[in-house]
Amino acid sequence: MNSRIRAGVYGGSGYAGLDLVEILWRHPRIDLAFATSNTYAGDAVPGTNLRYVPADSVALDTVDVIFLALPHRTSAAMAKRGIDAGVKVVDLSADLRIDTPEAYERSYHSPHPHPELLPTPYGLPEINRENVIGADVVATPGCYPTTTLLGIYPLLAAEALREDTPVIIDAKSGVTGAGRKPSLTTHFAEVYSNLIPYKTGRSHRHLGEMEQEAHKISERVGPIIFCPHLLPVDRGLMTSIYVTLNETIESDQTHDLYTEMYDGESLVDVLPLGEQATLRHAVKTNRCVISITPVLPRHAHITSVTDNLRKGAASQAVQNMNLMFGLDETLGLI
Amino acid sequence: MNSRIRAGVYGGSGYAGLDLVEILWRHPRIDLAFATSNTYAGDAVPGTNLRYVPADSVALDTVDVIFLALPHRTSAAMAKRGIDAGVKVVDLSADLRIDTPEAYERSYHSPHPHPELLPTPYGLPEINRENVIGADVVATPGCYPTTTLLGIYPLLAAEALREDTPVIIDAKSGVTGAGRKPSLTTHFAEVYSNLIPYKTGRSHRHLGEMEQEAHKISERVGPIIFCPHLLPVDRGLMTSIYVTLNETIESDQTHDLYTEMYDGESLVDVLPLGEQATLRHAVKTNRCVISITPVLPRHAHITSVTDNLRKGAASQAVQNMNLMFGLDETLGLI
Amino acid sequence: MNSRIRAGVYGGSGYAGLDLVEILWRHPRIDLAFATSNTYAGDAVPGTNLRYVPADSVALDTVDVIFLALPHRTSAAMAKRGIDAGVKVVDLSADLRIDTPEAYERSYHSPHPHPELLPTPYGLPEINRENVIGADVVATPGCYPTTTLLGIYPLLAAEALREDTPVIIDAKSGVTGAGRKPSLTTHFAEVYSNLIPYKTGRSHRHLGEMEQEAHKISERVGPIIFCPHLLPVDRGLMTSIYVTLNETIESDQTHDLYTEMYDGESLVDVLPLGEQATLRHAVKTNRCVISITPVLPRHAHITSVTDNLRKGAASQAVQNMNLMFGLDETLGLI
Amino acid sequence: MNSRIRAGVYGGSGYAGLDLVEILWRHPRIDLAFATSNTYAGDAVPGTNLRYVPADSVALDTVDVIFLALPHRTSAAMAKRGIDAGVKVVDLSADLRIDTPEAYERSYHSPHPHPELLPTPYGLPEINRENVIGADVVATPGCYPTTTLLGIYPLLAAEALREDTPVIIDAKSGVTGAGRKPSLTTHFAEVYSNLIPYKTGRSHRHLGEMEQEAHKISERVGPIIFCPHLLPVDRGLMTSIYVTLNETIESDQTHDLYTEMYDGESLVDVLPLGEQATLRHAVKTNRCVISITPVLPRHAHITSVTDNLRKGAASQAVQNMNLMFGLDETLGLI
Repeated sequence: MNSRIRAGVYGGSGYAGLDLVEILWRHPRIDLAFATSNTYAGDAVPGTNLRYVPADSVALDTVDVIFLALPHRTSAAMAKRGIDAGVKVVDLSADLRIDTPEAYERSYHSPHPHPELLPTPYGLPEINRENVIGADVVATPGCYPTTTLLGIYPLLAAEALREDTPVIIDAKSGVTGAGRKPSLTTHFAEVYSNLIPYKTGRSHRHLGEMEQEAHKISERVGPIIFCPHLLPVDRGLMTSIYVTLNETIESDQTHDLYTEMYDGESLVDVLPLGEQATLRHAVKTNRCVISITPVLPRHAHITSVTDNLRKGAASQAVQNMNLMFGLDETLGLI
Repeated sequence: MNSRIRAGVYGGSGYAGLDLVEILWRHPRIDLAFATSNTYAGDAVPGTNLRYVPADSVALDTVDVIFLALPHRTSAAMAKRGIDAGVKVVDLSADLRIDTPEAYERSYHSPHPHPELLPTPYGLPEINRENVIGADVVATPGCYPTTTLLGIYPLLAAEALREDTPVIIDAKSGVTGAGRKPSLTTHFAEVYSNLIPYKTGRSHRHLGEMEQEAHKISERVGPIIFCPHLLPVDRGLMTSIYVTLNETIESDQTHDLYTEMYDGESLVDVLPLGEQATLRHAVKTNRCVISITPVLPRHAHITSVTDNLRKGAASQAVQNMNLMFGLDETLGLI
Repeated sequence: MNSRIRAGVYGGSGYAGLDLVEILWRHPRIDLAFATSNTYAGDAVPGTNLRYVPADSVALDTVDVIFLALPHRTSAAMAKRGIDAGVKVVDLSADLRIDTPEAYERSYHSPHPHPELLPTPYGLPEINRENVIGADVVATPGCYPTTTLLGIYPLLAAEALREDTPVIIDAKSGVTGAGRKPSLTTHFAEVYSNLIPYKTGRSHRHLGEMEQEAHKISERVGPIIFCPHLLPVDRGLMTSIYVTLNETIESDQTHDLYTEMYDGESLVDVLPLGEQATLRHAVKTNRCVISITPVLPRHAHITSVTDNLRKGAASQAVQNMNLMFGLDETLGLI
Repeated sequence: MNSRIRAGVYGGSGYAGLDLVEILWRHPRIDLAFATSNTYAGDAVPGTNLRYVPADSVALDTVDVIFLALPHRTSAAMAKRGIDAGVKVVDLSADLRIDTPEAYERSYHSPHPHPELLPTPYGLPEINRENVIGADVVATPGCYPTTTLLGIYPLLAAEALREDTPVIIDAKSGVTGAGRKPSLTTHFAEVYSNLIPYKTGRSHRHLGEMEQEAHKISERVGPIIFCPHLLPVDRGLMTSIYVTLNETIESDQTHDLYTEMYDGESLVDVLPLGEQATLRHAVKTNRCVISITPVLPRHAHITSVTDNLRKGAASQAVQNMNLMFGLDETLGLI
């Protein structure tokens, strides 16, 4: 299969959409056919020779795959249209990430707009690559679930966590994670020199998704306590994870566990013991970078870092697309 | 006159309004009666025991003076109401800064909403203190005119500029200068790590005001070329001024000229020759800080710095109020 | 006792020293006699009419109290000299914070330079004010211990923590916390847009001090896991604290506990339930601001914030000095 | 000529050196043989499988070309060694940019260490490509001269400037321009939220170089007034240029002049009239981006932007190397 793949991006002027366009434009097997933006229709698409077109002006029969970097709910409707038109769909929204309409309603407080689409394969390739290969529609997880799940996956897979103890996630995200739509929350003067916790504890709407996927790997895991913070930088996401180990492992064995588990993964780096993952390790890369620090025999501190717009959004979507079309998983990404 | 002065702030939740509230709250002669905000009505006014009230809910007979940190045009209407009610008015908008309706219309491209209020005394005390003392209404200049005019005032007063050569102003402003209303322009991720020229050359709408005031001091001055930039910081404004001197002075005499002219001014600092004014000299202070560098015999480089929310807005408004009520000009400001 | 107190600052050109000078200069009962700096001797002391003098050039008999914002080990030696000269000593270094020479050596890996000075009263007034009142020498805790201990004190005092479970502290500090001495760690280009964990787990040298003080309040507390991060801002420190409660309390009772415990404390603010403490709540103030979020019945998330140079250093030193001289504790601080 | 070119980088751990390594590592015709660093010898070279080696441990006969990202004076000595050993030399320091020992001494206040190397071809390809093609040693100009000269080149070439009037350059540079060696000047807390003019007027040591090159293009140009500022960002350089035109051109013709002059240049973008060049246009790219604003008939405002580590250093060095070896000029750069 050497023909070119024609791709379209819906929501191409948001921050994830812009990174998606950048990656697809240089992807060796992709022809980017269009990028939609209702707000910027007619303007040049940065880094390309395209101009933004309104979402309803494009014909789906001109492409093989569409990427949806659209708002919540709008995305599900567009996914449905894509599926009906027989094109592959890579959804970057949260709409298709929850397995059941009931669970969706618990997290999002409204009925799922297209329950017939659930469940959709969850596109975190390092964990469930086999569900993504050849799929027609994939839900690409966002920055918080990706960074968190990759940060605890080896311990989950080894059934090494105490299930009566919470997993504590102190997360810090750059401002692009809040989207490009102007609001007081993202006003420069409100964020600058500040650090702002928000939707702490058990209230963030991606918590249900994280627990759903954690439980697919292992039932032996406690609840997740998740406290995100808005960081005064544009890009990058760090999750600081504090875990309690059960009797099957001591913390000084955890680094080996991670190294082995991610051996062969091109887009996950486990740092040598003693080095700490920093935001800069991951920003503007397509990788997740992880460091593990044994603290006490049964306690470890894990730092997992991604670029929220890349491995936390756009590059992971392209990684999924590569698998959906049977291409080399990292094509155009390393 | 030792009684307390009752003051109200219109537009108390914008960035200038917030600084105004902070200064007035600790001012030894002021009782802050109210701060209005239609957006935040009911919320606590930071740093005080007040709550924001809607602008149309306050009675003017409860105060002696009102400060207007309101949008363009809304401000003129409120100034009219204040004058009619017999309270003193300190306007921070641009509405009353232009002397004639015709000139206003040239800069703002619409008729002046209350031409009967023009001209209003222009409240840049270091230049025209005598017009402010005892006045009932004063137009407080904003950050660009204040910082620019104080930066060239000694040369204007000395008639030392070549009138056939432009004065070049390369200005840099922190983001609070663009107001608190969310927009893509002030989105953190658009400004961060960036530096953005805007309304360059002769297109900024405060240019007419600067030239009007410069010409009142001296007709011997060329046109102003004014190029502002949005700086990725929250506060602070720097104007870098490049002047060509006429035959009456050499550049190595300019520092003495500035030192003498501003001798006795508590809120203008002229740095020793060889030191450069930086943003930090002025941020969170109520002063304008100026450095002068002779470059060539007929060319000097002047750096003038203020906090755009203080000497460029709120503290200058209070300085004016002090003069309007016959108080010590710097009361509550140093 | 209404006479003026003559104070000297050793180490007046470091970041804590600069804030100390600023606070003491406007303190209504203090005459600042000198500020030392070997590096900047002869230069103007910002905001004052003093010039820096070398540390060995000042006579201790000209002052009533000295503040030591000096490097580790230099500070203990100077404290000794001050005590011998009969002046009161407020030490901001870590030298006098550890109660025994043995414990000091465990944390600092070298013998204590003046073991005869130990133990010294630990100056965290909200916790042990009675030891500070009238004392001749006080060890002022730094930013991490202050922010952390104030964040957990009510739970410690109530014996409400599970002692078999660690207290997890994810901390974030502005760069001034690393001192003013240039190093690659504090180079702008290394810190900017980055977030850097360091000395994580159990390796930070202030950990022993935190556990020492926590155990004085209650023996019923598990080990502390402490993971600091270098934040790309200049000032401000946040500790995000994750605690496990014992059977004596449920998490939804913790907010009341904090409110009661800190009732009457002018320099500790407990935010209303539902509000989150942000860096901006504390920066450039002399207060510690705390928010509590019940997460699960036995798990709470506490955010404690200070300005690392104020309540985490300089203003707390002045608060201690006020108590040492029998003044109002918050004089010059609110 | 299809064989691989073996390259070595001296000074591979400085900021320019790091970008150079990054570009060379992915360059399709280069094998990166070594990167030296005396400070980091033994450490991994980021993004490669190399380790830093001390400068004196490498044998010049293993490479075809060396890049010198070394301090002033050290660089000239190494250039001499490279030339003597018969390898091509791309120097990124200022040592070889001045044409005569006398002029060098005027700018640098010490005798040139290797006057026999002067003059060396000046490697600003868009201006003097013909001198670089096939050369054995090239002096690559740094960020300020590159950005400034490209910003005025079309006007110089057209002899359109008034020679009795200075060219005014208000420049703003990210902190990496000051190098990686720690100093108070580059301490995060000194730069953050600040804007600092330095070496203003006629005192910057790259001024002589700029005027030397300007005069090679045209003798009809006045003196340069050059005022750089340290900007609180890591990368990016903007020069804001204010020119006075002579009678041969009006300002509304300047945009066409630039467009024509740079037509066909892959690494210089002239923005459409009305758009302003921002820092973000150039950061992390290998291009210079220019906007022109006619202000008055005889006055224009030009904004020229580069990434100071790319077109202002590393990528321009590679562009020169491509020309020296007869490769496509932009190989590995677009």
